[in-house]
Formats: sequence, C-alpha cells, structure tokens
Amino acid sequence: MEIVIIGTGNVASVLGRKFKDAGHKILQVVGRDSMAASELAYNWDTVSTNYFSQINKNADVYIIAVSDNAIASVISELKLPGKVVAHTAASVPKEILKDVSNHFGVFYPLQSLRKEMMSLPDIPIFVDGNDAKAKNTLDSLAHSIANEKVAIAGDDARLKLHVAAVVVSNFTNHLYKLAEDYCKREGLDFKQLLPLIAETALRLKEVSPAEAQTGPAIRHDEETIHRHIELLKNFPQLKKIYELMTGSIQAGS
Amino acid sequence: MEIVIIGTGNVASVLGRKFKDAGHKILQVVGRDSMAASELAYNWDTVSTNYFSQINKNADVYIIAVSDNAIASVISELKLPGKVVAHTAASVPKEILKDVSNHFGVFYPLQSLRKEMMSLPDIPIFVDGNDAKAKNTLDSLAHSIANEKVAIAGDDARLKLHVAAVVVSNFTNHLYKLAEDYCKREGLDFKQLLPLIAETALRLKEVSPAEAQTGPAIRHDEETIHRHIELLKNFPQLKKIYELMTGSIQAGS
Repeated sequence: MEIVIIGTGNVASVLGRKFKDAGHKILQVVGRDSMAASELAYNWDTVSTNYFSQINKNADVYIIAVSDNAIASVISELKLPGKVVAHTAASVPKEILKDVSNHFGVFYPLQSLRKEMMSLPDIPIFVDGNDAKAKNTLDSLAHSIANEKVAIAGDDARLKLHVAAVVVSNFTNHLYKLAEDYCKREGLDFKQLLPLIAETALRLKEVSPAEAQTGPAIRHDEETIHRHIELLKNFPQLKKIYELMTGSIQAGS
Repeated sequence: MEIVIIGTGNVASVLGRKFKDAGHKILQVVGRDSMAASELAYNWDTVSTNYFSQINKNADVYIIAVSDNAIASVISELKLPGKVVAHTAASVPKEILKDVSNHFGVFYPLQSLRKEMMSLPDIPIFVDGNDAKAKNTLDSLAHSIANEKVAIAGDDARLKLHVAAVVVSNFTNHLYKLAEDYCKREGLDFKQLLPLIAETALRLKEVSPAEAQTGPAIRHDEETIHRHIELLKNFPQLKKIYELMTGSIQAGS
C-alpha cells in the first residue's frame, strides 16, 4: 500500500519501520517538527513536510500517529475524501475523524514503543473502521505487519484494553522503578533482579498468573511480611503499595 | 563436587538439575516425600532416602532446599561435622545451621523456580558462609552454575533483596492476575497482552524503569485516568490499586 504517516513520535517511528519492512511505500511524513520529519523521511527514502496544506493526496492510507490531545488540532483542516484515515489512540473514539474522510477508523498498536528500539517486538494491532472499506484496508495493513496478532476492537473494547495495558505495563514498570530506588538506597544491585523480572513475565506463555503466584503473601507467611514492612519504614510509598498488594493477594487466596 | 540435596520441591528440583548439568555428582536425595525423592533420584542417576538417619556422610556439600518453616525441624537431628551445609532461604539467618556443622552458610537463588520448567532461566546466586571454607565452597559451587551472576550477601542484604524480589515478581504477577480476571469478565483476550508484558520486562536491559515510564499517570492525563476509573467500578480491588499506583507515579514525576 501507499501510506502517508502523520506524526514523528515513538508510534509513528516504529509503525513506519514496520510498514517499510513489510514492503509498503511511505509516500510522505507529515510533522510539525521538521527536523524529526525529515529524519524519518530520510530513513524511509521518502519526503517530508511540516505544512498540512502540502499533504500528498495520492496515498491509500493515512495514519495519524500523534498524542491523544493533538489529534483534534491536527485534523482540524484535514480533508481527505475517499481515503482511509486512521488514528492510533486507544482512548479516542473513531468518530473524531468523521469530517476528514468517509472511510475512517483506528489502528491501535497494543505495545510500548520507543523510537530507539533496535529490534522491534511483536505488536498486536486492534483495528476498527466505520465501513467495510476502512475495516478491510486497515485489517490487511495490520496483518501485513502483525501476522496473526490482529483483532477488531470498537471504541469500548479499545478503552478496556487500554486499562489492562496500563495495569500490566505502566504499573509493573512503576514497581520496577520503586524496586530500583530501593536497591540504590540500600546498596543493592538492581540488575541482579533482571533474570527474575524476565522469568516472571515470560513464564506467562506456559502458566497463567493465577497458578504462578508465589511469595510470602499467598503463603500467609505473616512473619516474613512483618519483617519486610519493618524494612520499608523509610520508604512510605513502597510500604503503602506493599501493604495493599499483600492484602489484595490474600483476599483472592 | 559431591552433593546431597535435602528437599524435593521447586528449588531442590531446579538446583539439582543445574548441579547435574554442571558436572557435579549428586550422592543422594533426602526427602520426607519418598515418591518425590525417588523420582528426583531416578532423574539424577542416584539414590534417595526418606530417613534422615540414613543420610550419606561422604558429600562435600549439603543443600537444604525446604520451605522456610521446615528448616528448623529438618535440621533438628542433623549432625554433619566438618561438612559444608547451606540452606536456600532468603529470610532465614545462616546461624540456624550452627549446630549442624562448623561450616555453614546460605545458597540463595534469586529466581522464581518451578519443577516443571522446560528450560532453566539464569539464576543469580547469593552466598554467605560463617568461615572461609563455607564461603569459598559455596561460592565456587555457585559459579559453576551461575557464571558471573554470583555475589556474597549476608543475612541483612538477603532479606532486603527478598523485599525487592517480592515487589518485582510477586506483585507484578498479581497485577497480571488482576488484568487476566478483568479481561475474562470483559470478554477480552488476556493473551493479546503478552507481547506488551514481555517488552516491558525485557527493555530493562536497555533503559532504566525511571526512563521507561509511560502512560496516562505520568502524562497527568486526568481525562483518561477518570474514564479508566469509571470502567473499574465493578472491580473494587483493581480500582483501589489503580488509584494508589497512579498517585504514586504522579508523586514521583
């Protein structure tokens, strides 16, 4: 397909690389940050602009990969009748695009993406569209970069998926961060925890998290829990989280 | 080295396999569960007993890999003068072994280990000993199965490492479990989150968790946070955790 990418951030950068690797042609990169746009365009053998008035009107698909709050202003003067136009946001209804084109939808990558990534991870894609043309086009674009990891998800399902993603990614990362702070202050090497962190995540391919739960909380080992909470008396944030998580694990066991 | 393994659970099973793979000889498996003990012994080409009175006295090292609470009763009649004896528990002081031998210590694997594991993960080992003989013997045993991932950790450091391990493993696993429950009840496929979970854990090799934090909390995107909390009104446990974690992320940003 021929694609125009609007945006120059993490999602735009990574999706563009995936599109390119899958053999699609990126006709143009459109972004307010002209340095970033021309850098991406250079990488992808194409051109860039920072004027929305100069957008190339000949693509099959337009992917708007900008932050949630920026979508409304980016599309305010955009008219692409007959083209398939999609944004990439979990929490923004597809209807926001209804004045841009008669074929609009969403192309939501359920992943944590960073420009700097050397190797790209698996990226499940959830697509939605207002009509068959939008749905089918986005679905086949998604299949070309995500193999079997593609599903249809309407606004409601996408919002719920985002809640689950926040829990398993943003919140676990925050636990890693609190543990790193704790290790630093206690003179321990956080890097020694990386094999444990990897195993805890990767074993979910083999066992469900309900079966995999271990530790003092689920064993109701109150002596160890008590000693741990003592050790956290100078870490009030982590202490509160320790108590709530321990209670939550025990409530379900 | 010639090793006797006491215990037949997850830690005993996995450490025994690692010892065997590294070329050590397992002289005997000692366990109250005679079925489990004879099964491990069969796998490792050795013998087993469920009588502590019949323990083989000719090994170099005795590894007591039983649950924290069981250590005291297991060692109550154990006398192994001149031998190196170690338990594998994070939270139990090494001194508990002082009447078993004059060379005692700890051999703590900082990992989540399961008997059923097909391929064994990296296992950082923290060793401690009451004297040079215990320390050196356990240190070289650790190096033989963990390459460079070996460190000395006294009772205090080990207890603190355990707190950090609980945070990054038991608590993250509980978040996975709550997300799985949520997905089930909302008709979503939890498996679609596995690439995101893997990426969130594995990227720590490249970026620190402090740099990697993303999501509505750190962006102070109150509108999305509010919609998420609305969606969690029938999930009181997860709602409370969502609010506390969001507040904790924002407090540090």
